[in-house]
Amino acid sequence: MFVKKQEEVLAEEVKDEGAKNVLIQWLIPPDKAKTFAMRRFIIKEGGHTPLHRHDWEHEIFVLAGEGALVDKEGNEHPLKPGCFAYVEPNEIHQFKNVGKEDFIFLCMIPI
Amino acid sequence: MFVKKQEEVLAEEVKDEGAKNVLIQWLIPPDKAKTFAMRRFIIKEGGHTPLHRHDWEHEIFVLAGEGALVDKEGNEHPLKPGCFAYVEPNEIHQFKNVGKEDFIFLCMIPI
Repeated sequence: MFVKKQEEVLAEEVKDEGAKNVLIQWLIPPDKAKTFAMRRFIIKEGGHTPLHRHDWEHEIFVLAGEGALVDKEGNEHPLKPGCFAYVEPNEIHQFKNVGKEDFIFLCMIPI
Repeated sequence: MFVKKQEEVLAEEVKDEGAKNVLIQWLIPPDKAKTFAMRRFIIKEGGHTPLHRHDWEHEIFVLAGEGALVDKEGNEHPLKPGCFAYVEPNEIHQFKNVGKEDFIFLCMIPI
């Protein structure tokens, strides 16, 4: 087992096409886990992840700030602290910050 | 996809032998997920989960309160908000509240 603090983990800029003002921390990366990995995202003001899809699911839990989960029709589902969401494999989606503060959430993915 | 709030999910008492003052919310239960499930635990003052082991891993993230992760030697690894932990399959472990407030954490498990 191991216990760590979020501030011990490097926050790296997400450089994927379509990402803006997004940092990622790999809290429990694939090489430390068995079935799924835990990441912490920090989306700064005006930022967003790419509008994209992939063949794995997301499970997310919001820690801070005000955000939205955008679906394939462009609808924005509000995300606040204490909200959680599931995105199915191959669903088009995007996370965006719609507030002034950092929008921070955990996002787990299968390995 | 779906988005929900944590307060929409029933908090059920954990009745496993060795559990005391523990509530669980199945935020993303196995029948809504593909690879892993998301639970939210609330351990009240003086409470703890069983000291036990099982053949699946845990990934946890602390949301509130002061707790500890107890290992097989009885060592208590402190857990505060922003801490996260990994418990390997078959490792003996226990979560306990060591403070006055509710100790709250997310705990993900494979399906």
